[in-house]
Amino acid sequence: METQKQLTIGLFGFGVVGEGLYKVLQQTPSLKASIKKVCIKNPGKKRNAPDSLFTSDRNELLFDKEINVIVEVIDDSVAAFEIVSTAFQQGKAVVSASKKMIAEHLPEILKYQQDTGLPFLCEAAACASIPVIRNLEEYYDNDLLHGIKAIINGSTNFILTKMFEDKLGYQEALLLAQQLGFAESNPKLDVEGYDAVNKWSILLNHAYGIVEHPDNLVFTGIQNVQSGDAAVAKEKNYDIKLVAQAQKLVSGKVAAYVIPQFVKHDDQLSFVKNEYNGVVIESGFADKQFFYGKGAGSFPTASAVLSDISALRYNYRYEYKKRYYHTPGELTHDFYVKAYVSFSSLKDIVKEDFEWIEEWHGGLERSYLVGVIHFEKLATQQWWKAPGVSLILAPDPVIESIELRNIKKRSLELAGIGN
Amino acid sequence: METQKQLTIGLFGFGVVGEGLYKVLQQTPSLKASIKKVCIKNPGKKRNAPDSLFTSDRNELLFDKEINVIVEVIDDSVAAFEIVSTAFQQGKAVVSASKKMIAEHLPEILKYQQDTGLPFLCEAAACASIPVIRNLEEYYDNDLLHGIKAIINGSTNFILTKMFEDKLGYQEALLLAQQLGFAESNPKLDVEGYDAVNKWSILLNHAYGIVEHPDNLVFTGIQNVQSGDAAVAKEKNYDIKLVAQAQKLVSGKVAAYVIPQFVKHDDQLSFVKNEYNGVVIESGFADKQFFYGKGAGSFPTASAVLSDISALRYNYRYEYKKRYYHTPGELTHDFYVKAYVSFSSLKDIVKEDFEWIEEWHGGLERSYLVGVIHFEKLATQQWWKAPGVSLILAPDPVIESIELRNIKKRSLELAGIGN
Repeated sequence: METQKQLTIGLFGFGVVGEGLYKVLQQTPSLKASIKKVCIKNPGKKRNAPDSLFTSDRNELLFDKEINVIVEVIDDSVAAFEIVSTAFQQGKAVVSASKKMIAEHLPEILKYQQDTGLPFLCEAAACASIPVIRNLEEYYDNDLLHGIKAIINGSTNFILTKMFEDKLGYQEALLLAQQLGFAESNPKLDVEGYDAVNKWSILLNHAYGIVEHPDNLVFTGIQNVQSGDAAVAKEKNYDIKLVAQAQKLVSGKVAAYVIPQFVKHDDQLSFVKNEYNGVVIESGFADKQFFYGKGAGSFPTASAVLSDISALRYNYRYEYKKRYYHTPGELTHDFYVKAYVSFSSLKDIVKEDFEWIEEWHGGLERSYLVGVIHFEKLATQQWWKAPGVSLILAPDPVIESIELRNIKKRSLELAGIGN
Repeated sequence: METQKQLTIGLFGFGVVGEGLYKVLQQTPSLKASIKKVCIKNPGKKRNAPDSLFTSDRNELLFDKEINVIVEVIDDSVAAFEIVSTAFQQGKAVVSASKKMIAEHLPEILKYQQDTGLPFLCEAAACASIPVIRNLEEYYDNDLLHGIKAIINGSTNFILTKMFEDKLGYQEALLLAQQLGFAESNPKLDVEGYDAVNKWSILLNHAYGIVEHPDNLVFTGIQNVQSGDAAVAKEKNYDIKLVAQAQKLVSGKVAAYVIPQFVKHDDQLSFVKNEYNGVVIESGFADKQFFYGKGAGSFPTASAVLSDISALRYNYRYEYKKRYYHTPGELTHDFYVKAYVSFSSLKDIVKEDFEWIEEWHGGLERSYLVGVIHFEKLATQQWWKAPGVSLILAPDPVIESIELRNIKKRSLELAGIGN
């Protein structure tokens, strides 16, 4: 029997995730991991653990020589980055669940790991209980990863499911999500896609070695999805999901975005309902792999933190093979997508941005078109995200072919229908 | 950029999997793996590769000092074990896809690995493209794994799907599976559960550290499933699947088997249709994780072999943490299961083996009962596997409580209904 490392943990945060972790570690001595001290923001609050465990002085954890692992499950991304930075400087391994902090500080976190050789594990910051980072790092570690698409925000998926299946209005569905604890008290982070794009930024690194600030990724949320869009989807036998997607193009570069998408019923993502998450990985020879589980909530998040802690016992660390051992992927906007756009007023959309328009449906209240647009337009224009405009990508939206340009003329003629 | 190991491969077998592998390695120089020599049984056959690549003398590969990896994808389990044994003795890493060989020689293969420190990877021998071994080894590496249930045989799942959805008879469905290449030419291996129990034996090791010869596991296939059973399932709103299941009991011991099971429509395994495989992992705090993909066929199998080869570049090996770092799991038959049994003649079943009988449906051609039986009975009696008798477990069939015995008397009274 080989020796496992004894882990002495300094824990930041004692909300539902932190408290859950504390309990399970107490009940699982075989994990050889114990929490020595917990740093909390609000020392007055009654906690379900001995008083002596708590402090509000972060240095009591960060400068304790006995503590060899810092676990941080706090909400404040500025404080989280300070904690993580100091932890690295003090030679401690780090487990983090802070999506925003990691996504926004990826270059610094990578540098800390290179300089110190210390592990930084963050499975809880992607799809919670679904081990997507670990699989991208370890199993899909070669350059045969053709694409990955995923539902990575449970709140928006819950809302869309309720709009579709229970015919709730958007506001009603959002309220229900909040009541059930599936949505942040500030719903903007979920419904406008910020949470999803942070996770996608982290996953693009593990999938393709791409390090890109979330601000530079093309994304939106479900805030403009209309019940009329749901009706069109039903007609076409589609669901609407907020899909994060990355796809390797023939050029070798990578297309990536987080945008609502029509999903066919035989697509695995269509199986993902309510607050669940799902990831479809397409790799050479393997066809499509589908990973499914709870993507949010205290227990699923605690389970991911726990698995990371467990892995630290065996000195596991991400090797970032795609970044350091291969030529890292490169994002491009030079491709086309097929998209559906619904709008109340023709003034709100820029028809000329489309290469061609395939369908045009005028309506009394809302109209919609289906057309092909160069992705650079989505990256540089804002009209398609404005209130009242709802853009939803077609299933398999990416079109690579440059031949498209040749039929541009025809497209513009067709577009004339809408005048 | 760290250096990756250069892999020089000796390949055994050049069927669809072997040839697929050869092609993809040629097209993927970044993998730093090349096939030096291929050993084939039938040297006369025309191959899509240079003649100089082939030999029918296995020693040309096994004793070549330059070859540092043996990949074997052959059908003959006796030859496969000889090859693997010699490979270990010659200091070579091994990638194997031979389920039967691995399942039947687990103790020897584990010993070889311990003695030599050489890696032996076999993802292709479980669910092909689904990385279930890797996830059990690396991600679910602690003792919080409550249970795992899976559809691990694509052929039987294809047949059951066709019986259910297209109302084909068993023989018709089997023929179609063979025509489409989803079933072995000797269908017994698939339909009578031998393939599934071999895989389950391998997975029990990676899940719980259990090393058990497949002959000692309780299993059967779908050979006795009747269209009448499908009709009952439909009435009850269930599917019928051949389910491999393992579950940690309150006693700490593990219940495991491969037996047809009624599956509720909201169970993730119900989503697994046709030749696909699916695995549901239940672990502490994570609720249920679902992995889904192609579980058989040349390309999915080649993809798993490829991922193993890729992992060898980084000196990856299974650590068998559940076996060596924890107390290994122990199989038990001391629990109860709820089961449905259909039969044509009362003589074919042993009613007295049941603790109690909950339902009893007499019919002109076939009758059925639903009852609770001690698992030891299934392990020691053969009547439930005999032709004409079809036993299908209830959803969540395991009943642990010893309190059951108290109501045994009542059960025997009820069973009287059937006299």
